[in-house]
Amino acid sequence: MHTLSYFQELIEKGLLKLQLDKKPNELYDPIQYMLNLGGKRMRPALLLMSNEMFGGNPEEVLSPALGIEVFHNFTLMHDDIMDKAPLRRSKETVHEKWNPNIAILSGDTMFVQSCQLMMQVNDKHLRKVMDMFHKTSIEVCEGQQFDMNFETIDKVSIDEYLEMIALKTAVLLGGSLAIGAICADAFESDIQNIYQFGKKLGIAFQLQDDLLDVYGDAEKFGKQVGGDIIANKKTFLLISACEQAKGDQLKSLQSWLDKKEFNSSDKVNAVMSIFNDLNIKEQTEKKMDQFFHEAMAHLNAVTVNDSKKELMISFAEKLMVRTS
Amino acid sequence: MHTLSYFQELIEKGLLKLQLDKKPNELYDPIQYMLNLGGKRMRPALLLMSNEMFGGNPEEVLSPALGIEVFHNFTLMHDDIMDKAPLRRSKETVHEKWNPNIAILSGDTMFVQSCQLMMQVNDKHLRKVMDMFHKTSIEVCEGQQFDMNFETIDKVSIDEYLEMIALKTAVLLGGSLAIGAICADAFESDIQNIYQFGKKLGIAFQLQDDLLDVYGDAEKFGKQVGGDIIANKKTFLLISACEQAKGDQLKSLQSWLDKKEFNSSDKVNAVMSIFNDLNIKEQTEKKMDQFFHEAMAHLNAVTVNDSKKELMISFAEKLMVRTS
Repeated sequence: MHTLSYFQELIEKGLLKLQLDKKPNELYDPIQYMLNLGGKRMRPALLLMSNEMFGGNPEEVLSPALGIEVFHNFTLMHDDIMDKAPLRRSKETVHEKWNPNIAILSGDTMFVQSCQLMMQVNDKHLRKVMDMFHKTSIEVCEGQQFDMNFETIDKVSIDEYLEMIALKTAVLLGGSLAIGAICADAFESDIQNIYQFGKKLGIAFQLQDDLLDVYGDAEKFGKQVGGDIIANKKTFLLISACEQAKGDQLKSLQSWLDKKEFNSSDKVNAVMSIFNDLNIKEQTEKKMDQFFHEAMAHLNAVTVNDSKKELMISFAEKLMVRTS
Repeated sequence: MHTLSYFQELIEKGLLKLQLDKKPNELYDPIQYMLNLGGKRMRPALLLMSNEMFGGNPEEVLSPALGIEVFHNFTLMHDDIMDKAPLRRSKETVHEKWNPNIAILSGDTMFVQSCQLMMQVNDKHLRKVMDMFHKTSIEVCEGQQFDMNFETIDKVSIDEYLEMIALKTAVLLGGSLAIGAICADAFESDIQNIYQFGKKLGIAFQLQDDLLDVYGDAEKFGKQVGGDIIANKKTFLLISACEQAKGDQLKSLQSWLDKKEFNSSDKVNAVMSIFNDLNIKEQTEKKMDQFFHEAMAHLNAVTVNDSKKELMISFAEKLMVRTS
C-alpha cells in the first residue's frame, strides 16, 4: 500500500507534465499559474487511494486523477471571478492578475481539458466514469448557484444549507472516490458506499470549516477568526442561531446582522456570545460527528479487507483534526 | 432523404424537451432563455444531414445534435460577457438580463449538459465522438482567445486571421459533420473529407460575413453597414488593405484607424474608398470562392452516391448567397 505523500508526488509530477507549450499563451499561462498555486491535491489523491484500495493499479488512473484536479481548479477560477476574490493561496487570483475575460475563457478551457483527461480510462469503464464525472460537475455548478442565492435570501433552512454544501463541496469527494473504484472494477454496492463515504466526509469537513472560522486557532488555521461572522455568511452556526434565538437575543443578533458600520471584533464577540448561550458550538460538533460517523459506516461496509482501508481511515481522521 | 426544415423542426422539438423543471431556477432559467432565442440551428442540422448522408438514422443521433447546439449557445453566452454585448438576436443578453455571474455559471452548466447529450451515442462510437467534440471545444476556446488578442495587437497577418476564424467558427461546422459521420460508421477517409468540407465552408462563410459588413445590403442583411470599419475590427478586408496600402493611402488609412472622434459615415466612406482603390472586394471574393471550391472538392471526394449529397450541396450553396 502506498502512502498519501507518494500519491501527492505522483499528482504533482503529472500536473507538471500537462504544462506543454501551447498557444495562445494568454489562454494557457493562466492555467499553468492556477495549477502551480499548489494545494493538498486531496481530490485526485482520493481517486488514486480508492483505486488502490479496490485492487487497481493507481499509476494507470493518474490521468483521470489529474482530470479531477484540473476540474476542481476550473471551478475555483470561475468562483473567484464570481466572488470578486483578490487572492487565492496568498497569490493574486487569475482575474486580478490578468482580467475576468481571461479567467472565464481559461476556465472554460480547463473544463474541456479535465474531460479529455477523464476520458483516458479503459473502454469498459469509459461511460460509467464520464457519467459520474458529468453528474458531479452539474451538481457542483448547482451548489455554487445555491450558495450565491443564499447571499440575498433572508432565511435559509439547515436542510437547504446541508444540501448546498453537499453539492458545492462534498459530491466531488464522493465522485473522485467512485471514479477510482469504477476503474478498479469494484462492485456496484462498493462504489455506492465509497461515494457516500466521500460525500458525508465532505459535509463533515465543511461543518468543521464553519466551526473553525469562529472557534479555530487563528495562527494554526491561517485565517482571520470570525471572518464569516463579519460577512454575515450563512454558515451552519449562524443559521442554527437564527432558528433558535428568541426575544432580546434574536433582536440583538438581528441588529448585528443589519448593521452597516461596526467594529469587527465587537461584532465577532457579540455574535459569538449568542452562539455560546445557545450551545451552537456543541450542536455543530454533534452534526459534524454524525456525518463523520455515517461516512465511516459506509467505509466499513465496503467489502475489501480491513488492512486495505487503513490509508483511507487515516486520511479521514487527519482531515477532521484541524480543530482549535 | 429528409429536408433541412424537417431536421430543424426535429431540433426545435428536441430543445423544448430538454427544458425540464430543474433547480435552482437562477441557473436553469437563463439556459432556457438562451436556447429559446432561436437561430437557424445550422450546426445540429449539419450533424443530422451528415448522418443521413452516410446511411445513418438521424432520429437516433438527435441527442448529440442537441449537444452541439447547447455547446454553441454556451460559447455565445460566455462570448457575450467578454464582448460586453447588450443584445443577442435583438433580445437582452443573459449577462444583461440577469448578471455576469449568472451568465458564467449557466454557461458552465450548459457545457456539462452538452457533454451529457454528446455521450448519448452507441458505445462503439463513444470515444471517437467525444474525442472529436473535446478537440473542437478546445479549438473554439483558442479561437476566441486569438480573436480577443487581435483587438490589442497592431499587426495581424492574413494567415493568422484565417487560422483564428478557422478555430473560432469553422471547426465546429467540421466537427458537427464529422460526429454525424462517425455515428453512421462512415469510413475514416470520408469522415476526414466531410470534416474538411465543413471547416472550409465555415471559413468561406466567415469571409462572406466580412464582405457583407462593408458591401452588403443593410436591409437584407439586418446589420449596420460598416460596423466593422467603425470599430476598427481586423477583418480579412482591413488586414488586406493594411498590407497593401502604400504612401498617402496608407497614411490616410492609418489616420482613420487612429481617430478617436469621427463621423461614422465619413469613416466608412473613406475606408471603403481605400478598399475600392485596392480591389479588396475582389480579393476577398476570390479567397472566399477558393475556400468554397476546396470545400466542395472535399464533399465531392466523399464515397457515397451523388444523389445522397444533394441536400448538403444545396445547404452549402444557400449559405453562400447572402450577397449584396
